[in-house]
Amino acid sequence: MPLTVQKFGGTSIANATHIKSAAKRVIKTYSAGNKVVVVVSARGRMTDELLELAYEINDRPSSRELDMLLSTGEQMSSALMAMAIHSLGYPAVSFVGRQVGITTDSFHTNARIISINANRIMEELSQDKIVVVAGYQGVDENDNITTLGRGGSDTTAVALAAMLKADICDIYTDVDGIYTADPHIVPEARKLTKISYDEILELASMGAQVVHVRSIELAKNYNVPIRVRPSFNDGTGTLICKEVSEMEKIVVSGATVTKNEAKITIIGVYDKPGQAAKIFRELAKENVNVDMIIQNIGAHGLTDVTFTVLKGDLPIALATTERIKGEIKAKKIIADDKIAKLSVVGVGMRSHCGIAERLFSTLSDEKINIQMISTSEIKISCVIEEGQAERALIAVHRAFELDKEPQAFTRGA
Amino acid sequence: MPLTVQKFGGTSIANATHIKSAAKRVIKTYSAGNKVVVVVSARGRMTDELLELAYEINDRPSSRELDMLLSTGEQMSSALMAMAIHSLGYPAVSFVGRQVGITTDSFHTNARIISINANRIMEELSQDKIVVVAGYQGVDENDNITTLGRGGSDTTAVALAAMLKADICDIYTDVDGIYTADPHIVPEARKLTKISYDEILELASMGAQVVHVRSIELAKNYNVPIRVRPSFNDGTGTLICKEVSEMEKIVVSGATVTKNEAKITIIGVYDKPGQAAKIFRELAKENVNVDMIIQNIGAHGLTDVTFTVLKGDLPIALATTERIKGEIKAKKIIADDKIAKLSVVGVGMRSHCGIAERLFSTLSDEKINIQMISTSEIKISCVIEEGQAERALIAVHRAFELDKEPQAFTRGA
Repeated sequence: MPLTVQKFGGTSIANATHIKSAAKRVIKTYSAGNKVVVVVSARGRMTDELLELAYEINDRPSSRELDMLLSTGEQMSSALMAMAIHSLGYPAVSFVGRQVGITTDSFHTNARIISINANRIMEELSQDKIVVVAGYQGVDENDNITTLGRGGSDTTAVALAAMLKADICDIYTDVDGIYTADPHIVPEARKLTKISYDEILELASMGAQVVHVRSIELAKNYNVPIRVRPSFNDGTGTLICKEVSEMEKIVVSGATVTKNEAKITIIGVYDKPGQAAKIFRELAKENVNVDMIIQNIGAHGLTDVTFTVLKGDLPIALATTERIKGEIKAKKIIADDKIAKLSVVGVGMRSHCGIAERLFSTLSDEKINIQMISTSEIKISCVIEEGQAERALIAVHRAFELDKEPQAFTRGA
Repeated sequence: MPLTVQKFGGTSIANATHIKSAAKRVIKTYSAGNKVVVVVSARGRMTDELLELAYEINDRPSSRELDMLLSTGEQMSSALMAMAIHSLGYPAVSFVGRQVGITTDSFHTNARIISINANRIMEELSQDKIVVVAGYQGVDENDNITTLGRGGSDTTAVALAAMLKADICDIYTDVDGIYTADPHIVPEARKLTKISYDEILELASMGAQVVHVRSIELAKNYNVPIRVRPSFNDGTGTLICKEVSEMEKIVVSGATVTKNEAKITIIGVYDKPGQAAKIFRELAKENVNVDMIIQNIGAHGLTDVTFTVLKGDLPIALATTERIKGEIKAKKIIADDKIAKLSVVGVGMRSHCGIAERLFSTLSDEKINIQMISTSEIKISCVIEEGQAERALIAVHRAFELDKEPQAFTRGA
């Protein structure tokens, strides 16, 4: 019998009405002849409310105690979901993470799953019960309750799907699916029917709001197909799965802009081996994550190094570079936090040339200056001026015809 | 090192301010050189709110799922209490019932503790930590979360105190202690310094609002001294302990009236063996608890049987007696739900005579008619007209001089 894991996020089960409506979806799948494991998040603002209370009591709450506190949100949801399924006349039983054998490491508030002992779930499924599991949590080897951090319930769902060899992991959310670009910026953005793990990972900033990167990595590793579906209508959503040959015909799957980075340029660095290493070693010591880096070949033995960091890290990154300015014999340091990063992503890029050229000429036609470029096998990103971000995205979306149904994009088409 | 178990009820930890204030009391005891185990209830209206939500989803929620849901209230409190203790600079760690080895039977929503494996608590105490335990819950042998029913957190506190051989179990509440009578009815009611387990058990209706009967029975069995203390001031409260010789000098410890019962009289029952048994067997089948029973010797082979039941059970009790009316050849059935039960309790009664006489004559002086009488070794109860309840209690309290400091009461004193 096919097995489906269905995950409902906080907004999908925010109140009694929503919980009952989610229960109906579960039963629909169950009645169609599937075994069903349901994973639930905390209801609506539950987690935020608990956090507010915690910080009212202690401005630096212990992470172990935070886990003890926060894990209750999902536990409540699991019991309420089981009750809702019962009220519709179907068998269900709820469990916390520990009860279904989810063992994690001891990194409280951000634990990683080490193992799952699925015996209890298998036993209940074999009795034709719908199994409801509290997401986001587990227990460490010393029997302390742990939580899995951001996107933790997605991680629980995907991990259970992997362990149970589920046929599909449905993730119900408050969006229709994954789009070629943010529909708020690009009105003609199109919902994707399918997208590969690699693409959604590259489009992280776009995908993160729907499914957390960590769950996608997990799904990719265990080849668990994820379907991102709307919880408030019958839309089929977007399937996230491994790359199949048909996908390669689609050169670009999506485009995105992010505004969460800032840029630092170090001008007139003495151009000798080890200077770049010195800069980024010092930044790493301060826990600053550097995203894009470019360094041009300079004249007269001097070069300029530009890199981007998260906006929140800009002050510490600036202080760090200023501190080593003398040591690396740099002339000047310039910061700019009014930047945006535009990216286009697609597995088809691997086998199609001309993507970069089309991207650059589209921006050029729009009189948008490209400040930095970085490429991966399936992504091209450009740093541009922040104020031009939306206009750039719309233009690029149109240039790659992302609003049209999937078909091979060829240069000059 | 002495060990104290301290239990805080829902009103004592209703919000962040109250939790911090409770944490200060814990630390005061800890700093005075005690090992401390703290047991917490759910905050304020938490349990009621969760129940409302459950019934909104399912009008007959499964008891297993209710336990899953409701146990989160105490879990939250335990984490918040640990955070509050941390914020004051002291070491603490929170646990749910299962983590401190509380195993129960499988009677969900009303489970009984079967065993406690205190290893984890002992280990944490040996590291000088304050151990905070979520009250009201445990886990059955199949690893399902269970709750202990009404007064469950008191039960957890007393059970842990018994298992850990604690020197005292402090139960913090929103009252000053246990009084000779309800101070709302009898203004001169006096707070008792000490009361025996047996007396508080007989005064259940008075004591139940402070400490649940079940915990007192447990405390009595394991000889755990309980101190009922106010959480909002430094009052010393009332010590509930085993009877000591000095107590016997106090004839009456307290008086109480309850209005939660109704009376049924079956008139003209054919007086032959087995008739009474028949009536009460049928009532038991319907789960009706019968409290007081009187049967007078009748004339002409007929007798009248009167008994009391909880008011809520009156309809079913009436229907049941009406059903068997013909079988027991009864003439008539009369119900009265406008009654009150007045009781006086005291271990000293055992060795003092004249208590009943003084009670009856006090009521007679007040022109209050006694409808039923029942006695135990340390209690005398009278059923009277509901409207006279308060007046009767005040008169009896005065007659037995309960407002005065403990001293031997002798007949005619």
